[in-house]
Amino acid sequence: MTSILVPRPAEALLETGGGAPDAPVLAIDIGGTKLAAAVVEPGGRVAVYDRVPTPNEPSMDGEALWRTLAAMLEKLLAEAGEPALAGVGVGCGGPMTWPDAHVSPLNIPAWRGFPLRERLRETYPGLPVRVHNDAICLAIGEHWRGAGRGRGNMLGMVVSTGVGGGLILDGRLIDGASGNAGHIGHIVVDPDGPSCECGGRGCLEAIARGPGLVNWACEQGWQGTTGVALADDARRGHPVAQAAMRRAGRALGLAIASATHLCDLEVVAIGGGISQAGALLFEPLEETLRTYARMDFARRVSVVPAALGQTSGLVGAAALIFEPEKYWSAD
Amino acid sequence: MTSILVPRPAEALLETGGGAPDAPVLAIDIGGTKLAAAVVEPGGRVAVYDRVPTPNEPSMDGEALWRTLAAMLEKLLAEAGEPALAGVGVGCGGPMTWPDAHVSPLNIPAWRGFPLRERLRETYPGLPVRVHNDAICLAIGEHWRGAGRGRGNMLGMVVSTGVGGGLILDGRLIDGASGNAGHIGHIVVDPDGPSCECGGRGCLEAIARGPGLVNWACEQGWQGTTGVALADDARRGHPVAQAAMRRAGRALGLAIASATHLCDLEVVAIGGGISQAGALLFEPLEETLRTYARMDFARRVSVVPAALGQTSGLVGAAALIFEPEKYWSAD
Repeated sequence: MTSILVPRPAEALLETGGGAPDAPVLAIDIGGTKLAAAVVEPGGRVAVYDRVPTPNEPSMDGEALWRTLAAMLEKLLAEAGEPALAGVGVGCGGPMTWPDAHVSPLNIPAWRGFPLRERLRETYPGLPVRVHNDAICLAIGEHWRGAGRGRGNMLGMVVSTGVGGGLILDGRLIDGASGNAGHIGHIVVDPDGPSCECGGRGCLEAIARGPGLVNWACEQGWQGTTGVALADDARRGHPVAQAAMRRAGRALGLAIASATHLCDLEVVAIGGGISQAGALLFEPLEETLRTYARMDFARRVSVVPAALGQTSGLVGAAALIFEPEKYWSAD
Repeated sequence: MTSILVPRPAEALLETGGGAPDAPVLAIDIGGTKLAAAVVEPGGRVAVYDRVPTPNEPSMDGEALWRTLAAMLEKLLAEAGEPALAGVGVGCGGPMTWPDAHVSPLNIPAWRGFPLRERLRETYPGLPVRVHNDAICLAIGEHWRGAGRGRGNMLGMVVSTGVGGGLILDGRLIDGASGNAGHIGHIVVDPDGPSCECGGRGCLEAIARGPGLVNWACEQGWQGTTGVALADDARRGHPVAQAAMRRAGRALGLAIASATHLCDLEVVAIGGGISQAGALLFEPLEETLRTYARMDFARRVSVVPAALGQTSGLVGAAALIFEPEKYWSAD
């Protein structure tokens, strides 16, 4: 890779934690629907952005998927003028081993134990490469530059095909024992509820994820196939779609009540396609939360829409490099 | 106060964070049943210990209660030979404002907004005084010197008249926005369950606390008044008492499943009177936990009895002084 900016030895970057003041970060967001990447400036601004649909045909093998990603990154960096980079930050669908990031995204069958961090290190030798769960990166993005800015205690959530999250407490990202802290989607909100893909039952995700809501709505006579269509129909006044949003809102309110009792949160920021239902989702959420979270400290939590839109995961991935003292505890 | 050890200027103690290598800590544990105190050595050993029943007659006023506590502390320090102290650490029943510790323990009506930290600072001028929730101090004690020793991610729980806890994540005590993190007792385990003293419904505490179990058992024909008697009867084979323990165990298992999904825990340590039911409580707990926590990372959590017995809260209160980098984030 050539560079038109002043080249920096990798050692100097590492000495400053990869956070050289003026070098940008290559940020990558890997999901079942799209592969996105951006060059993110130190302040968090997305300078250059690109995305391609995730190739997910059954014949796709892991190496072919990697080549698709690598080609997109090469093109992006060329467009950006081949900047000297401070590092590479990645959000990727889980599960994964962490921090070594052998990734097995639920919605990307071609990658099972794919050594993503290792491959990126080979591609960008000498640069720090840091990979975390995509929902955690969204939470970091919202904490660093979005709805949780300046708050010490925040839960960031994605309500979409799945329900995921990331937890910032006492001002720092919480990783937990294996990098899996933040799985708000598997708070049990109804012990006798529907079975969950995790193997359990009655998890928030089993009720509030897009496909769960779609199934439930279809049983009630709604016709459609996607969570986004369901949220759209709810906004247009379809009664079953609205009832589905109330169902999701109630489950979210219960899970957030439990989470704030356990973690004493200031703010919960919710993104993802389902959250676009707006008040139809947030009003029953708020009503349920206020019913179950009654102690003074728990009443103080505010629940807000995520602020950064579709780039929050990329901004958060970049913060793994820019702000390691807050967001990266590993190696 | 005179001293038979080499006196240290308070400034020197403060410079080392109050953790002078050989000075002991005065540790205090304030609950609705007893006031306990100890002189705790730097390694965590309880050198001298005393307790008195909490005077709780309706005529008791806050100043009289304070005098009872102050007299016990004076006697204890005399017995210990008036040691030079590194500081004063306190666990006190909640709620309280934190870290300034205006305390209003639920079970001590004489104290409502009582300025405990201020009073102790006046009594022990120049020494650091640190106050936290009593369940948090138990969790700290178990993390520092008990069942969670050496683990980075632990939930410490008390199952007694109430259900409380404290959360250690990524190696440090989590305080949350207002010092209230760790309220595991208010994870909602049954949205349609019994009303809770917090104002909510279906909280773990509403089901599994001693008085809740006693009420339920009495409705089923058991005769008795205390949770400890109920646990005893369960061990002796009383079928209703055993069913009450299964009910508590199931609620605990559900709450711990949710907690470990959110926080990625390694170990949960459970103390308090109800936990003395042993396998009668822990077996249904474990069965429920294994049913609801199925993802690889969540299956790794182990649930164990607290190891330190009745001194764990005192040992944890002492650690507020001895190990502030792990357990004390305030001032």
